[in-house]
Amino acid sequence: MGMPIELKEYGYGKSGIRLVKVTREGQRHHLRDVKVEIQMFGDFEAAYLHGDNRAILPTDTMKNTVYALARQYRFGAIEEFGLRLANHFLGRFPHVKRVVASISEKQWQRISCGAQPHGHAFQGATPERRLALIDKSRSATSIEAGIAGLAVLKTSRSAFNNFLRDEYTTLRETQDRILSTQITAQWSYSGGRPGFNHVWNGVRTALLETFATHDSQSVQHTLCAMGDAVLRSFDCISEIRFSMPNQHCLLVDLSPFHLDNPGEVFLPVDEPSGLIEATVRRPDDAVA
Amino acid sequence: MGMPIELKEYGYGKSGIRLVKVTREGQRHHLRDVKVEIQMFGDFEAAYLHGDNRAILPTDTMKNTVYALARQYRFGAIEEFGLRLANHFLGRFPHVKRVVASISEKQWQRISCGAQPHGHAFQGATPERRLALIDKSRSATSIEAGIAGLAVLKTSRSAFNNFLRDEYTTLRETQDRILSTQITAQWSYSGGRPGFNHVWNGVRTALLETFATHDSQSVQHTLCAMGDAVLRSFDCISEIRFSMPNQHCLLVDLSPFHLDNPGEVFLPVDEPSGLIEATVRRPDDAVA
Amino acid sequence: MGMPIELKEYGYGKSGIRLVKVTREGQRHHLRDVKVEIQMFGDFEAAYLHGDNRAILPTDTMKNTVYALARQYRFGAIEEFGLRLANHFLGRFPHVKRVVASISEKQWQRISCGAQPHGHAFQGATPERRLALIDKSRSATSIEAGIAGLAVLKTSRSAFNNFLRDEYTTLRETQDRILSTQITAQWSYSGGRPGFNHVWNGVRTALLETFATHDSQSVQHTLCAMGDAVLRSFDCISEIRFSMPNQHCLLVDLSPFHLDNPGEVFLPVDEPSGLIEATVRRPDDAVA
Amino acid sequence: MGMPIELKEYGYGKSGIRLVKVTREGQRHHLRDVKVEIQMFGDFEAAYLHGDNRAILPTDTMKNTVYALARQYRFGAIEEFGLRLANHFLGRFPHVKRVVASISEKQWQRISCGAQPHGHAFQGATPERRLALIDKSRSATSIEAGIAGLAVLKTSRSAFNNFLRDEYTTLRETQDRILSTQITAQWSYSGGRPGFNHVWNGVRTALLETFATHDSQSVQHTLCAMGDAVLRSFDCISEIRFSMPNQHCLLVDLSPFHLDNPGEVFLPVDEPSGLIEATVRRPDDAVA
Repeated sequence: MGMPIELKEYGYGKSGIRLVKVTREGQRHHLRDVKVEIQMFGDFEAAYLHGDNRAILPTDTMKNTVYALARQYRFGAIEEFGLRLANHFLGRFPHVKRVVASISEKQWQRISCGAQPHGHAFQGATPERRLALIDKSRSATSIEAGIAGLAVLKTSRSAFNNFLRDEYTTLRETQDRILSTQITAQWSYSGGRPGFNHVWNGVRTALLETFATHDSQSVQHTLCAMGDAVLRSFDCISEIRFSMPNQHCLLVDLSPFHLDNPGEVFLPVDEPSGLIEATVRRPDDAVA
Repeated sequence: MGMPIELKEYGYGKSGIRLVKVTREGQRHHLRDVKVEIQMFGDFEAAYLHGDNRAILPTDTMKNTVYALARQYRFGAIEEFGLRLANHFLGRFPHVKRVVASISEKQWQRISCGAQPHGHAFQGATPERRLALIDKSRSATSIEAGIAGLAVLKTSRSAFNNFLRDEYTTLRETQDRILSTQITAQWSYSGGRPGFNHVWNGVRTALLETFATHDSQSVQHTLCAMGDAVLRSFDCISEIRFSMPNQHCLLVDLSPFHLDNPGEVFLPVDEPSGLIEATVRRPDDAVA
Repeated sequence: MGMPIELKEYGYGKSGIRLVKVTREGQRHHLRDVKVEIQMFGDFEAAYLHGDNRAILPTDTMKNTVYALARQYRFGAIEEFGLRLANHFLGRFPHVKRVVASISEKQWQRISCGAQPHGHAFQGATPERRLALIDKSRSATSIEAGIAGLAVLKTSRSAFNNFLRDEYTTLRETQDRILSTQITAQWSYSGGRPGFNHVWNGVRTALLETFATHDSQSVQHTLCAMGDAVLRSFDCISEIRFSMPNQHCLLVDLSPFHLDNPGEVFLPVDEPSGLIEATVRRPDDAVA
Repeated sequence: MGMPIELKEYGYGKSGIRLVKVTREGQRHHLRDVKVEIQMFGDFEAAYLHGDNRAILPTDTMKNTVYALARQYRFGAIEEFGLRLANHFLGRFPHVKRVVASISEKQWQRISCGAQPHGHAFQGATPERRLALIDKSRSATSIEAGIAGLAVLKTSRSAFNNFLRDEYTTLRETQDRILSTQITAQWSYSGGRPGFNHVWNGVRTALLETFATHDSQSVQHTLCAMGDAVLRSFDCISEIRFSMPNQHCLLVDLSPFHLDNPGEVFLPVDEPSGLIEATVRRPDDAVA
C-alpha cells in the first residue's frame, strides 16, 4: 500500500456461541441456556495490515474454549463465567490487551406436575433475558449485569401533561393512559463481588414493583424512579443505565360509529415508538 | 380479456389487526392483547375479473368492525369473539358465503407487589400464544382452539433407538438425549360449547405434564402420548393436530481436548430441525 | 393405552436444511444457495403409537442425503433437485408412500468489477426467493414452482372506488393511491417438464410488467390480471395461486399544520394489512 | 426522594418513524423510503427527577415534524434531510443542546417494461440499507454516512493460515475457503459537504470491487484493504468504521459416504459467526 493508513479501536471475536449446560444432581437436573460473545483487543495490526495471522487466535478456538471451560468448571452466575473466560484469554496470551465477554441467558422454569416442580423437564419462562458484560484489561475490570426485554404494561396511573408545545404538536394531554415498555437496564458493580444471583433477582423485583406502583408523569419520570429504587436497595451498584421504548397503545377513535371509548379499546403499535434513555447514579460516584 | 379464466378458492380479508382491550372493575383491571385476522369468501368474482368493487367490503371496514364490536360487547374467550365476528359478517352480507376468523392471544400476568398480584400492572408471561380459529359458512361452523410456541425441554427420559439405517445414516443410537421442541397444537370441538378457558388451560396442563413424564422413544411417540392424554381428558375434543419441531441440542465433542462430556455441554441449533406432524383422533370420529 | 386412538395425516421430516453448492468452471464459479425441507408419509404408525422406530429413517439421514446427492449430481433447477430427492426416498423405502420436497432459493448476483461480472465474487440480489414444491406419491407427481416476497410498489394508476359500505365504513374512495404488496405466487405444471428456469424467469417478468402497467381497481383486480398474463404466456401452467398483502401506505394528514399533501408524504404500515388470495386457472382444467 | 441521585447521558426521542416520499415530475415519479430516529439531549432534568414536563417536546411532535418538513422541502440525500431535522430542533429550542438524527433508507429500483424503466412502478432492490447519522451540538456537527447489510460472498481467493494455536485449536489451515459476510460500514466526512450521493455510490463500488479482487488472508485483512480503497478514493472521508461478521460456510464432510468434497457442498451457518471490527483512518487525522 502506497498510502499509510492507521487502525483505531480494532478487535475481533466470536458472537452467537450458544451453550446449554446441564448439571445433574441425581434425578434433579439444572438447566442453563446462554449465548456468549467474546471480543479481543490487542496487538493484531499485522493481520489487518499485512495478512500476517501469527497473532490471531481463530474465533473457532474461542468457541471451543467456551465449551471446554463450561465442561471443566462449575457454571455459576453468568458474571462468573464471563470473568473466567476473560481471565483465561488474558492469562494465556500476553499480546491480548483487553477481553470483552458478553453473555445473555434465557429463562426456563420447571414444569409443574401436580403441584410439584419436575426434576428434569422445563418450559420457557418469561421472555426477558439476563445479561452480563465483563470488560477486562491488564489494569482494570468492569463487571456489568443487566436485563433485556422485560415487558411491562400498566393501565392506570400514567399521565403525560404540561409538556412543551409548538406548531407541530397535536398530542392531547392525558391523565390516564396505558404505559407499555420493554425495560433494558444495565448496572455496574462498584467493587467487590456481590451475590450476583441475589442482586439480579432483587433488581428485577425493584424494577417491576416500582413500575407498578409509581405515579408516572412520563417514561422519563418512571425511569428515574426505577433507578432510584435500585440504587437505594443495593449499595454495590454505583450506576444503572436504562433504555426504554414507549410502546404506544393508541386509544381507538370510535366516534364515527357513535360509540364512546372510555379507555377500553386500544391499538398497540410497534413503530414508531418513543425511546427514553438515561444513566442514574449516586452523586458520590460523580468522577467519570 | 380474450381468454376466459376461472377463479378457485378466492377470498380476501384483513390480517394483523392488533387489539388491546381493558376492562375495569374498580381498581382491578383486566387486560387482553390479541391479533385478529378476518378472511371472507363469497360472490366477489366481479371485483377480481372486472374491477367492479360493489360487492367488496373494504378490509379497513373489517378492522373498524373488530374495534367497534370489542367496545360493544363483553370480551370473553377468543373463541367467543371469533364467533361474534363471523356471525356479524355472515348476518350482514348475504353474498358472503363463509368467514374465517383467526385470533391469537398474547399472555400477560399481573406483577406481584409483595406477595399480592397488582390490580393494573402487568408483565409479559410465558411466550406461547393462545389460538382460536372460527370457520363458519351458511351450513356449518367449525371451532378450533390451539396453542403455539409452547417451548419445552427435557434433559432425561428421551431415547432414540432401533431406527432404520441406510448408507447415509451416521446418527448414533441414544438412550438419553435432550428433547427440545416448541409445541403447536390445534384441536376441534365436536359440538356444543365447552368452557373454552377451562378446556384450554386443561389441555395446556395435559401437554406439559405428559411431555414431562412420558418415557419418550421419539418425538412421534411423545406427540401421540400427548394427543392421547388430551383426548382422554376432554370428551368435547374430537381430534388434535400437532406440529412439533425437533430442536436439536447436539452433545459437543470435547475429545480433542481430552475431556469427556457425559451429557453436560450441548450446542442447541435452530436449523435444521426435525419436523413431526400428526393429527390424533378418536376412532368414532373416523368418517371424513 | 386403554382407549384406542387413531392417526390422521401424519408424517415427519427435516426442515431448514441449508445448502450452498459451488460449481467451478475454471475461474468462473457458479453459486447456489438453497433451503430444503423434506416430509415423508407412510407406514410409521408403530413409531407414533408404540415407540417402535424400525420404520423411521432419522431426519438426520435425510439431511445427509441432501448433501450427498448435491455432491453426486449436477445441481440443475430446484424443481429437478426436488424431484431427485423425492425419487430417491420413494425408490429406496417401500413403506414410504409419499414424499414432499420443498426448496427455496436465495438470489445472488455477480459483483461487477469495471463493467465485467466477476468470476467468483457475488453480492446479495433482489430479496424475493424462488420456490419449488415436489409432492410425489406412488401414483402421482405434482410439480409446483413459485416466487415469494417479490416486493413491488406503484405510485399511480391504482384506484379503489364504488365499494360496499356499512356503518363501520370510514374509508374514502380514491382514484390514485399507492399500491404496495409482496407477491407470493405458486403455479402448477400440468404435465411434461418445461424449461424450469426459462418459465420461472418468464413468470417473474410477466408479474412485474403486469403489476406496473395494469390500471388497478383493487388488489383483487391486479391479482387477476397477473394470473391472466401468466396463463396466456405459458401453456405449461395450468393454474397459479396468489397470496398478496395490501401493505398500506397511508397519506399523512398535514392539515393541522396548514399544509396540503397532494400524494407526497406517506406512512407505510406493516400491520394491519389487507390479505388477498385466489387461484386463477384455465377453464379446461376445471375438474379437480 | 430522600437520597439524591444524578443523571448522566440522558436523552429521549422517537425511533421507527417511517416515511415514504413521492416526488412527481409528470409521469416520472421518484420514490424514497426511509426510517428516521431523532434523539435530543438538553435540559430535561426536571422531567426525569420531578415529573415536570414543561421542557419536554413530545416525541409525537418529533414525528409530526418529520412529516411536515418532508412536505415543505425537497427531499435530497438523507444526510441533508438529517441536517435539516437537527437544525430545526436546535434552532427552535434553546434548551436542547444536541440532536442526533439517524436515517436509514431502503433501496427500490424501477421495474423494467420491455427494456424501459417504468415511470411509477418499482420493485425491491438489493437488500443493503443506506445510512446517515447527523450528530449536531451547539459547537460541532458530525456527519456520518454508511451502508448496512451489504451481503457478499466469494468462492475463491480467501485463505486463513499460519494462525496462533493452543490446545483448544482444531481449525485446519486453508488456502481456499468461502468468505461470506454482511458489510456494515460508516464513515465520517472531515469538513465541507461533498456530493453525498456520488460519494455513497463510490464507496459502495469500492467496497464491492475490493472484496471481489483482494487476495484475502483473513476477514481482518480484507477489511483493511476495503478501508484503504475508500480512503484513497475519497479525500473527503477521514475515517471509516467496519463491522463484519464472518458468516461461516462449512465444508460438509462426506467421507462417511465415501464421497470427496472438493469445495463443492457447504453448510452455511448463522451462529456462531466471527465478528471483525476496526476503524481505518488517515494518519493525519490521528488526533482525537
